[in-house]
Amino acid sequence: MAGNSFGKLYKVTTFGESHGEALGGIIDGCPPGIQLDFEAIELDMARRKPGQSAIVTQRKEPDAVQFLSGIFEGKTTGTPIGFIIPNTNQKSDDYSHIKDNYRPSHADYVYDQKYGFRDYRGGGRSSARETASRVVAGAIAKQMLSEIKINAYVSSVGPIHLDTPYQELDFSKIESNPVRCPDEKSAAIMEEYIRDIRKQGDTVGGVVTCVIQNVPVGLGEPVFDKLHAELGKAMLSINAVKGFEYGSGFSGSEMKGSEHNDLYNPDGTTKTNLSGGIQGGISNGMDIYFRVAFKPVATIMQTQDSLDNKGNITPMTGKGRHDPCVVPRAVPIVEAMAAIVLADFYLINKTY
Amino acid sequence: MAGNSFGKLYKVTTFGESHGEALGGIIDGCPPGIQLDFEAIELDMARRKPGQSAIVTQRKEPDAVQFLSGIFEGKTTGTPIGFIIPNTNQKSDDYSHIKDNYRPSHADYVYDQKYGFRDYRGGGRSSARETASRVVAGAIAKQMLSEIKINAYVSSVGPIHLDTPYQELDFSKIESNPVRCPDEKSAAIMEEYIRDIRKQGDTVGGVVTCVIQNVPVGLGEPVFDKLHAELGKAMLSINAVKGFEYGSGFSGSEMKGSEHNDLYNPDGTTKTNLSGGIQGGISNGMDIYFRVAFKPVATIMQTQDSLDNKGNITPMTGKGRHDPCVVPRAVPIVEAMAAIVLADFYLINKTY
Amino acid sequence: MAGNSFGKLYKVTTFGESHGEALGGIIDGCPPGIQLDFEAIELDMARRKPGQSAIVTQRKEPDAVQFLSGIFEGKTTGTPIGFIIPNTNQKSDDYSHIKDNYRPSHADYVYDQKYGFRDYRGGGRSSARETASRVVAGAIAKQMLSEIKINAYVSSVGPIHLDTPYQELDFSKIESNPVRCPDEKSAAIMEEYIRDIRKQGDTVGGVVTCVIQNVPVGLGEPVFDKLHAELGKAMLSINAVKGFEYGSGFSGSEMKGSEHNDLYNPDGTTKTNLSGGIQGGISNGMDIYFRVAFKPVATIMQTQDSLDNKGNITPMTGKGRHDPCVVPRAVPIVEAMAAIVLADFYLINKTY
Amino acid sequence: MAGNSFGKLYKVTTFGESHGEALGGIIDGCPPGIQLDFEAIELDMARRKPGQSAIVTQRKEPDAVQFLSGIFEGKTTGTPIGFIIPNTNQKSDDYSHIKDNYRPSHADYVYDQKYGFRDYRGGGRSSARETASRVVAGAIAKQMLSEIKINAYVSSVGPIHLDTPYQELDFSKIESNPVRCPDEKSAAIMEEYIRDIRKQGDTVGGVVTCVIQNVPVGLGEPVFDKLHAELGKAMLSINAVKGFEYGSGFSGSEMKGSEHNDLYNPDGTTKTNLSGGIQGGISNGMDIYFRVAFKPVATIMQTQDSLDNKGNITPMTGKGRHDPCVVPRAVPIVEAMAAIVLADFYLINKTY
Repeated sequence: MAGNSFGKLYKVTTFGESHGEALGGIIDGCPPGIQLDFEAIELDMARRKPGQSAIVTQRKEPDAVQFLSGIFEGKTTGTPIGFIIPNTNQKSDDYSHIKDNYRPSHADYVYDQKYGFRDYRGGGRSSARETASRVVAGAIAKQMLSEIKINAYVSSVGPIHLDTPYQELDFSKIESNPVRCPDEKSAAIMEEYIRDIRKQGDTVGGVVTCVIQNVPVGLGEPVFDKLHAELGKAMLSINAVKGFEYGSGFSGSEMKGSEHNDLYNPDGTTKTNLSGGIQGGISNGMDIYFRVAFKPVATIMQTQDSLDNKGNITPMTGKGRHDPCVVPRAVPIVEAMAAIVLADFYLINKTY
Repeated sequence: MAGNSFGKLYKVTTFGESHGEALGGIIDGCPPGIQLDFEAIELDMARRKPGQSAIVTQRKEPDAVQFLSGIFEGKTTGTPIGFIIPNTNQKSDDYSHIKDNYRPSHADYVYDQKYGFRDYRGGGRSSARETASRVVAGAIAKQMLSEIKINAYVSSVGPIHLDTPYQELDFSKIESNPVRCPDEKSAAIMEEYIRDIRKQGDTVGGVVTCVIQNVPVGLGEPVFDKLHAELGKAMLSINAVKGFEYGSGFSGSEMKGSEHNDLYNPDGTTKTNLSGGIQGGISNGMDIYFRVAFKPVATIMQTQDSLDNKGNITPMTGKGRHDPCVVPRAVPIVEAMAAIVLADFYLINKTY
Repeated sequence: MAGNSFGKLYKVTTFGESHGEALGGIIDGCPPGIQLDFEAIELDMARRKPGQSAIVTQRKEPDAVQFLSGIFEGKTTGTPIGFIIPNTNQKSDDYSHIKDNYRPSHADYVYDQKYGFRDYRGGGRSSARETASRVVAGAIAKQMLSEIKINAYVSSVGPIHLDTPYQELDFSKIESNPVRCPDEKSAAIMEEYIRDIRKQGDTVGGVVTCVIQNVPVGLGEPVFDKLHAELGKAMLSINAVKGFEYGSGFSGSEMKGSEHNDLYNPDGTTKTNLSGGIQGGISNGMDIYFRVAFKPVATIMQTQDSLDNKGNITPMTGKGRHDPCVVPRAVPIVEAMAAIVLADFYLINKTY
Repeated sequence: MAGNSFGKLYKVTTFGESHGEALGGIIDGCPPGIQLDFEAIELDMARRKPGQSAIVTQRKEPDAVQFLSGIFEGKTTGTPIGFIIPNTNQKSDDYSHIKDNYRPSHADYVYDQKYGFRDYRGGGRSSARETASRVVAGAIAKQMLSEIKINAYVSSVGPIHLDTPYQELDFSKIESNPVRCPDEKSAAIMEEYIRDIRKQGDTVGGVVTCVIQNVPVGLGEPVFDKLHAELGKAMLSINAVKGFEYGSGFSGSEMKGSEHNDLYNPDGTTKTNLSGGIQGGISNGMDIYFRVAFKPVATIMQTQDSLDNKGNITPMTGKGRHDPCVVPRAVPIVEAMAAIVLADFYLINKTY
């Protein structure tokens, strides 16, 4: 029950601390016979990893995934896919300054309280480095669902919002800039803002929007395992996420039923899509879209008070390189978790 | 995998259609020896049921729960608690007008597509009547966690928002008005607004805020089963929910790390609580608070186009009584799901 | 984790004590569109219930199952099937003599130790009456798998063994005698033996053999969830079972590989079937057959020492009617559990 | 649902094919703070590995386990323990002769039928090499349950049986001979028999008996997850197992209740222990003992007919080294699976 697995039929279990020997995981339930595109997996890994551009952390994580099982002659065999991502620099950093100290808004304090002690090297298990394993599992899920299109992008950075509806955006431009915002003007302003935040030794949050197209009708289960409920859980399980909304979202709560109802076309599609592609927890074939809010990461280069394990408040300054805005790097993680959720429901749907 | 269970150690499975013989469920994993307060269970059932006041639906659902097992001499025995809630009026309504018709923004269409056919009497399994079983399971979870305090209330109805921070509200006033808003002025305006919506034969959405106090440090699991991820899934699994945010939520995405970090007091509490009582997915002992957005329910008394199963668009008018704003009735459901999530993590935490 | 569910995709959860209001359960995951034969369900219930013949207990259990959900116009809908079996005589018996006493080889003592107290009316949750719910779930599983044939029969009672290979038996004769032994001569001897045991106020064990025919190739999962491992768990979960063997079983451990290997025919069938229809945990299309050993039930009409909850040894004599040999009544339970296991793997196999 | 996990709270998931890069697994749910004895883990690995003595296969498997996470400064941290066991000789063997051939009583045929194709290098996922990962997980479970004593030994090899009750055996002698039989006379006869079988190029089965002592009262759940049902599943999931019996087992089915009932001593222990330490599925504090039957392994050095994937019957002779009797090597696997089951129930029991 320790919460290191996600999914029921496409089941992903991850292990690994930020500064241990390796991260890794097991994908159990991937159907046999899928011809894997390993370059596509590496590409998603590269999109997630630090050091891609001037606006993200320069810390190096080669993130080379090694597949150990479940693949034969380039195809999945139906047996569990085990993989590891070695931590090549796990001994290079000095974490003695946080050994006995709880950094504000990190998990240090609650880990010590919950487990009695902790692996104090970096974030240990609470580090976002764990999401590298999710990206591997998500990349394979995407290949399993090759007809479904998942596109995520940064729609706001701090106070800067891209308000253009997704239908008017060109998703092919998402990767054209380091912010991963498909609107070039907004991207430039966001990038400038992040550079400024970095100079301040500060961090900033943002929002990732995700659009899923070409979804078959019928994915998702009624009652507890609604499609949007699992998507919500998947997104909220990503480090630093504070909110999730789909379709009309929070603004839908201000509307009247007569405005909000999506009227049908004769072919079962709807004229509007405030439902966000999901009705009663089940996909209706329209685009699924949702927004994920990320808070600013807690590690800043400014001096802040921390608590030590003897109850003393002591000033602490972040060391090394920091990540002023993780939101662009979160884009492939959002896509990966969405793919895992869809893969799971796709398999569940085959049991009817 | 059909998604009718929630929780791992405090596990709730529900069954029942809105117009079948009965609803019901099984609570598996409730520890032995809990002296049950049956009046408290009935009270929560009464808070959820229709017909409580002039601003909710007048449809009658007596909602009398019958416990069939797992309780002996008033105490839980540790064996599964089976219960049923008979549907007393399941034959009284005429649903022939929706037999072959898909109502806009209902689950009718996707059920037919997914299952090949459906129980067309009312919403069937997709009806919010299913949440009655959740309230039973939540009411028992609350009693298991008697020291934890869970208070939910309506913080907005359509465009009318209560912006007062929860710390300044008197939760004892939540039940003093039919809107379940603890601020009397706002409650009056909201009630007036709902009456107006009802006259229009329309519906309106809203937001429920929930505050959980007196939570022990350590509940929640790292990685996928973060406390807020499970709370999010639980809330998003409630009918009509479109969004979930906790702590600083979406507005936290606009902040800088230097503003957002919650600095410690020497006792491990924090001076601010933008984290919303959860760090790294684990409760830190501060108040947990979150917001849940509900869209307006789809059944309106106005005429709207619907689709029939032969591909024809035909106008349809809602019959019988309707519920102009379900948000007040959703308050006990939000509390119930929160209690179930906490009960589950409370038991998981005992395994360390 | 309280162990009241069985199956992953065809998932059965049961509740109920022998002397509570009702037994019942939920079948979650039954596919939609199965036209149910309710008489066949009742027939299996009748085969399990007490009082069928002179050689079983005369205690009355009407065992009328009431379906509450998941069925519409006679067909399964794909939503959970909730059902109850009221306990009509739950107040008629006097159990005060066992309130503070632990009967030998019953679960009384361990329940008190584990849970702190217990529902002392009869066996409570540990009563074999719980298996009535399994028979309901198994009867529906059989209908889902209509092409697979499951036949169980009594192959030994106490020291009396039927050694005829199952291939030489006429399964249509199983129900022709109260022992449920398809060999009439053996059946007569067994029946005579049981009558004698009953006169002694004693009980006796026996063995049920089960044969499953017409199984598609491919059911069962490698590694932990091997088909025979799940069958074994299912059988061992039935009250009073002490052993399980399939195919060559314990006698196979005495053989050489050159004798035990099943050589192929060109069509993939095998010339012999010591494997028992399962290789590497996966069905190979040959008949699956296994044996289940039942100990004598603990309730006897003779006087035996019991322990009270103050540590005193006191003589105790069984009251009321007793069941000299439950093995004939276990036949439909064995079939039901086999059907549930097969239904589960059948659905799992659809995900490849 | 692909069946590569075992356990609910102490959850073990394994991956790896016999001739892939590596085997490995994840232990999720191991409590924090357990000081690990790595030598004890290596010792159990050494007991399982091939080439230990003249009577087992001489194939080399170094079986060096590498822990990648979940351990810090020698102690478990409560986070998932990931580990790998590299396959050092995965390219040395020539398996082209079985690429298109189905060996009798192997899983080759059913894998091809189930998955559409298979990793034909050795047994792939169906190889008993997978059990190396179970031994790792079991060795850690044993350390978690340090007060419980688990001893398994070989009690029969082919037709040679050790009939001495376990109470009269000296478990310290189990490792004193290559057969792992604590009775030296029987061990010598069994060893001689196995040498003879090896000369014949044949294989032979046998029985492992396992005794678990010092078990607290209360482990195991009523109904489906009875302690012996999970033990049975665990044992039946080990390659080549055909049967499981505990306590009085199959012979108990021949007894009368008046003989079989275990009468109490005033302290709650019982005078006899035909129940095998478990009543109603729950441990009663007495010794748990059970027997596990292994068939002879299918790979023999004699010529036997096999089937190719075009439907031709062709003679085939086993190549390389073979294992005339795997039963001695199965002893640590039986212990490992027993430890995993107990660890799981131990954690479940903490939730009451």
